[in-house]
Amino acid sequence: MAQKNSVHCLRQDPISKEWVIFSSVRKSRPHAHKTAPIENTLPRYDPACPFCPGNEKMLPAILHESPGISDQQWSTRSVPNRYPALSSSGNLNREKNGFYLCMGAYGHHEVIIDHPRHNKEIPYFDPEQMHSLIDTYHSRYITLMEDPGVVMVSIFRNHGLRAGTSLLHPHSQIVASPTVPRSIRLQEIRAEEYFDDMGSCIYCDLMHNEIEVVSRIVTQNSSFISFVPYAAKVPYEIWILPKRHTADFGSINEFEKKELSSMLQDLISRLHNHLNDPDYNYLIHSYTRFKSEEPHLHWYIQIIPRILTRAGFEMGSGFFINPDLPEENAKILSNVS
Amino acid sequence: MAQKNSVHCLRQDPISKEWVIFSSVRKSRPHAHKTAPIENTLPRYDPACPFCPGNEKMLPAILHESPGISDQQWSTRSVPNRYPALSSSGNLNREKNGFYLCMGAYGHHEVIIDHPRHNKEIPYFDPEQMHSLIDTYHSRYITLMEDPGVVMVSIFRNHGLRAGTSLLHPHSQIVASPTVPRSIRLQEIRAEEYFDDMGSCIYCDLMHNEIEVVSRIVTQNSSFISFVPYAAKVPYEIWILPKRHTADFGSINEFEKKELSSMLQDLISRLHNHLNDPDYNYLIHSYTRFKSEEPHLHWYIQIIPRILTRAGFEMGSGFFINPDLPEENAKILSNVS
Repeated sequence: MAQKNSVHCLRQDPISKEWVIFSSVRKSRPHAHKTAPIENTLPRYDPACPFCPGNEKMLPAILHESPGISDQQWSTRSVPNRYPALSSSGNLNREKNGFYLCMGAYGHHEVIIDHPRHNKEIPYFDPEQMHSLIDTYHSRYITLMEDPGVVMVSIFRNHGLRAGTSLLHPHSQIVASPTVPRSIRLQEIRAEEYFDDMGSCIYCDLMHNEIEVVSRIVTQNSSFISFVPYAAKVPYEIWILPKRHTADFGSINEFEKKELSSMLQDLISRLHNHLNDPDYNYLIHSYTRFKSEEPHLHWYIQIIPRILTRAGFEMGSGFFINPDLPEENAKILSNVS
Repeated sequence: MAQKNSVHCLRQDPISKEWVIFSSVRKSRPHAHKTAPIENTLPRYDPACPFCPGNEKMLPAILHESPGISDQQWSTRSVPNRYPALSSSGNLNREKNGFYLCMGAYGHHEVIIDHPRHNKEIPYFDPEQMHSLIDTYHSRYITLMEDPGVVMVSIFRNHGLRAGTSLLHPHSQIVASPTVPRSIRLQEIRAEEYFDDMGSCIYCDLMHNEIEVVSRIVTQNSSFISFVPYAAKVPYEIWILPKRHTADFGSINEFEKKELSSMLQDLISRLHNHLNDPDYNYLIHSYTRFKSEEPHLHWYIQIIPRILTRAGFEMGSGFFINPDLPEENAKILSNVS
């Protein structure tokens, strides 16, 4: 029984079935938990930045623009990614390439400009601005899911160099892809097996368990719950789950958008304040095409702070090593503001 | 047919079934392909480094020591990791933790000191030194696999900060773990399915295909082949496969050890010279316990240069985005020395 809340144990993520190694002694390693300093040396406007207002000639196009807030002409914009991973000029054919399989790089890759100001990060957004950002995610999601060649739409935000971003102006991204990655498909199968066994959604059951256990919850409102997952892969990983069962992010209503935007901004602010502006990724996981009616899938947001580097063992073995206990991270995050 | 060798396509790894997005336009992104400068400012000896000869009092123990070469007292050593992810004081019990599953952090975590000199990296090793390193990997592998509580032994090397290392003295690591990660188990199942379909080892068939196609081969000798995989996840990823079919790294013979050490050193030198001393991981993938006699598994080494950062999309979706075509990387690597 010793290992249940031990800081030296393995825990299994019940959805992905991945094992995570928890080892608090690794916290003392040299360089571990190094955080970047808060940098606020950026200008409000950068004449060389294609995302700053007035520099529209550097943009390939503007796909969507949300109304401005107070004195701004616009609040958020969606534009084509200048370095697209996937594009609508690709074709959808799958081909045998001798021993291998390949296919065209069909899809869409957009950048969302999160704020007109070059140096305005999420913790400093007006609430209306954050709401406009969620609204833009939603609107682009609906539009891209209308393309029958697309089977999955991923909305994500990379903040900081360690999180893989290459541009400083606050932005998010959307990738609409033509095939479902193996890891996503396996999670779907796993959730379906659970549904066949238990007759219920594994995400709903997990959420009800978190509400009962309490110790991993960070925040709650009437529509959403945020918590550090039992088998968090990295320190301060957070999941946001809608309380209403639905597989489809596109089905979110106006009230839920408002509650989501205030919860997401609050969580990013807590990370920002407690971890000294850490690099992070967040990603909206929604259903893959033909799965929207499934009773066993549930959309959610995953926030992944990038304060540690994945090394060779984690890259190659499929294990993760986390020096922090989820309950301790949750306690800290629920107490800071 | 256009996409077969297109720089804008998706390719599937036939073993993991993961899709990789190839998009050469992403090469032009700001910050992409930034490489670290070659730093050779380290001293030969650091009085504060526990791995330097003479500082043995800072080591918890010495588990293995190989005979010295020329004037050195020893060539390589294996010592306990001071910040172990797993330890033999953990227990092996699995337990239900309410909704979840957990287990003790049983296992072993060792550091291999690759060279007595603080500033001596693999490209500058004597051939005898590199042979001693492979020999130490082999000897520790055999010893750790003798522990019946261990089901998998991972040997890996993290070079550079981006690869997750925290100590400068050249070193490798070994983790002996008590359970098999889901991703490894799925690859085993996939290889077994292939064997049931085709009656042959998927790795052997893949290797024969590479020998026939030629364009992705980097180097060859009588025992091993090295190539950039068809669906390489990152630029300049390299796999080394033994030509002799065996699932077990432990079964390597004296001649193969010699050929492996010269091939691995040569490949690391090529990466070092061409990419300006890039950060990298390499990992020896061998069989998991009870699978040594399987005709469908095959041990191999994976080298993963860390010149790009995995961003939110890749972290969360299971897709990889690679800006480089494997055939181009292989051509460059086979021509440099």
